[in-house]
Amino acid sequence: MKKNNYLEGFSKMSREQKLSTMARLADDPQSFTKELKSFRYADDPIQQRFEQFSENILSNYHLPFGIAPNFLIDGKLYHIPMVTEESSVIAAASKAAKFWYKHGGIQTEKISTRKRGHIHFSWYGTPGELEKLYKEFEKKLPSYISELTGNMEKRGGGITEVWLSDQHEELPDYYQIGLSFETVDSMGANFINSVLEKAAELLKTESEKDHPGKLEVIMAILSNYTPGSYVQMKAECAVEALNELDGNTNGAELAEKFHKAIEIADHSVSRAVTNNKGIMNGVDAVVIATGNDFRAIEAGVHAYSVDRGRTTSLSQCEVNGGVFTFRLRIPLALGTVGGLTNLHPLASRALEILGKPSAKELMRIAGAVGLASNFSALHSLITTGIQKGHMKLHLENILMALDVDETMKEKIKARFKNQSVSYSQVKAFIEGEL
Amino acid sequence: MKKNNYLEGFSKMSREQKLSTMARLADDPQSFTKELKSFRYADDPIQQRFEQFSENILSNYHLPFGIAPNFLIDGKLYHIPMVTEESSVIAAASKAAKFWYKHGGIQTEKISTRKRGHIHFSWYGTPGELEKLYKEFEKKLPSYISELTGNMEKRGGGITEVWLSDQHEELPDYYQIGLSFETVDSMGANFINSVLEKAAELLKTESEKDHPGKLEVIMAILSNYTPGSYVQMKAECAVEALNELDGNTNGAELAEKFHKAIEIADHSVSRAVTNNKGIMNGVDAVVIATGNDFRAIEAGVHAYSVDRGRTTSLSQCEVNGGVFTFRLRIPLALGTVGGLTNLHPLASRALEILGKPSAKELMRIAGAVGLASNFSALHSLITTGIQKGHMKLHLENILMALDVDETMKEKIKARFKNQSVSYSQVKAFIEGEL
Repeated sequence: MKKNNYLEGFSKMSREQKLSTMARLADDPQSFTKELKSFRYADDPIQQRFEQFSENILSNYHLPFGIAPNFLIDGKLYHIPMVTEESSVIAAASKAAKFWYKHGGIQTEKISTRKRGHIHFSWYGTPGELEKLYKEFEKKLPSYISELTGNMEKRGGGITEVWLSDQHEELPDYYQIGLSFETVDSMGANFINSVLEKAAELLKTESEKDHPGKLEVIMAILSNYTPGSYVQMKAECAVEALNELDGNTNGAELAEKFHKAIEIADHSVSRAVTNNKGIMNGVDAVVIATGNDFRAIEAGVHAYSVDRGRTTSLSQCEVNGGVFTFRLRIPLALGTVGGLTNLHPLASRALEILGKPSAKELMRIAGAVGLASNFSALHSLITTGIQKGHMKLHLENILMALDVDETMKEKIKARFKNQSVSYSQVKAFIEGEL
Repeated sequence: MKKNNYLEGFSKMSREQKLSTMARLADDPQSFTKELKSFRYADDPIQQRFEQFSENILSNYHLPFGIAPNFLIDGKLYHIPMVTEESSVIAAASKAAKFWYKHGGIQTEKISTRKRGHIHFSWYGTPGELEKLYKEFEKKLPSYISELTGNMEKRGGGITEVWLSDQHEELPDYYQIGLSFETVDSMGANFINSVLEKAAELLKTESEKDHPGKLEVIMAILSNYTPGSYVQMKAECAVEALNELDGNTNGAELAEKFHKAIEIADHSVSRAVTNNKGIMNGVDAVVIATGNDFRAIEAGVHAYSVDRGRTTSLSQCEVNGGVFTFRLRIPLALGTVGGLTNLHPLASRALEILGKPSAKELMRIAGAVGLASNFSALHSLITTGIQKGHMKLHLENILMALDVDETMKEKIKARFKNQSVSYSQVKAFIEGEL
């Protein structure tokens, strides 16, 4: 490794200075510089825009942008843009979409969009004094934050609820003021945080008037735990319809196996986590494609999966009277205006492909893709296993990385056909050791 | 919205056919096609490689690739590549890195790399019969899977443990065979799943010999719940050193506020989820930059945060005898060979910038970035609030989207200085309504 020094004033360097500084760490600085530059977008104003999304930017990381076609959701057809680096995710979602298209599609059962944030504070006076202070705060709040809320209210959103929560018995001196928000088609993080910080300012000012030193605001921030902003999707068919998924299996048996697989995920944390990961493979691919924040969604979804004190399955399966029902309920707080949705050209294009949906419509779409991803993954797992499909793709990837000629490729494919394979095995085979 | 038809055989279309099919959904098909194409990588063989990562690929989604410099981790200096679309994430990580560089850096306290997978099955015989069958299975397993494990063993990895887990009292007829794995520098998902599916095949064959019809394999798959593959990072300084973070605050007071903020996150699910989201802002940016799977990491991390029956803070803060200690323990299963690490040119470059680390070293790096992200986010939250910094960046983004001239830009900046701002407010201001 090259000598690695402390870099004074790195953030103030020009982009090219930053790049050449990093190139010094590379084996071949020239090819490093050339390659990093080659990933920049050719149109410079757009590239500059990407560089303002974040800090100290050298180039762009490319993730494949693909389409899962033929999703029938609430009777409407969608071809869904997905951004993922994981093989099989788009293929699996598409396969499930095709099956459910023939069986009535995927439906929304419930949807809600209530977001929340809190002022977290310590209070050293009596609960009675705080109650009085809170009443004053509540009365003054609307006018105090009207400059922030005016436009949101015009669009049909705003603050929907305010409450005081006394938690000092569990954590000494600790109280919350909670606020509920409706942010219409924006994700609303900046709006919510601005309102909360301004509200915290009012709370502090009010307390200083009558109770100097008795109140300390710790912080004011939205919560990514959004159990009140969720979507519940359902897909349903006759048990015999599952025969169509593959030739070998009896629909009733397959339905029972789906049911058992979900029961296991509901019972075993080890399985629940991976079951839910498979759901998020699909959800995140839509979240990224449409310019939303996948860390926020991931945090909210996994916290929501906690039930009976542990992680459980987010999807549910019922087999009842010859009917197979597959359900997914997940919290989602998505936006279709503001943030990257306007700024990233491909996020805008993704929304265009989807017919410029509202935030609620995008929640249904992401929820449907989550359901479809889980349905296909489970189907593979309970029948052939996931490795058969993966291995074919995996072998292709290995061949790409090894850069061998066509004749050798064919030999390798014949040798490892229908078989598990690793990079080192293929390498050993090429070198005549296997 | 344009007419949207069911697309028969979409996956079999050529890339250009797929693109023109999607372009029909756009307002202006020609500009849509041109823009989608403009995001493809200029070097066609590399572009083809991206298109083999996933399915039905039209183009690439660009995410900014930047650097958080000056991380001192276990006495070694790193400049860390991060891929994120969220503003402030890289700046915040860099700010914390700079502070901790001056105070001994960030240290690894504990690290472990045990991964697990399971054969999930139903057993309809007696527990005694299963015990005997399991013994037979365990004896035959090593030779049955030797073709798969040989190379991993040469590299120092392989299966480290096998066990039978009887869970039929909680879920009728349900049992697991668990396997522990060491996968050295690869993430190992394909290796683990291949071994598990092959082991399930052996289990089925063995059971059919003496107990036909008594055993049904439901599925065999790795678990993304990896409490045995984790890293625990620590940063420590004298309480007074915190004075350096900003001029206005007393170090001891700031330390107490950090402590209180973490206590709140540990107590309140609403706050815990967002606290942990902030950690993952940093962790995921490293995970993506180095070609790892962020859905797997997210699922494992959030499940691990469940304690006392609910989501709690993954970071911890102690203030003791004038010493401030900040800790983060998270499960991570990362690879630095195999998968995208070899195939995505920028993932390879990211690993090169990091000095081609081992998987364990990358775990320390990602853990340190998680700790730094959380430390900086909390510092902002408990002092000025996060909106001040965000709003400056947010206003820049709004100005980009609105495409106004320099004179108007300056007017807007003056009007909204040090103030919360929304897209619609700026628009109203431009149109003379504010």
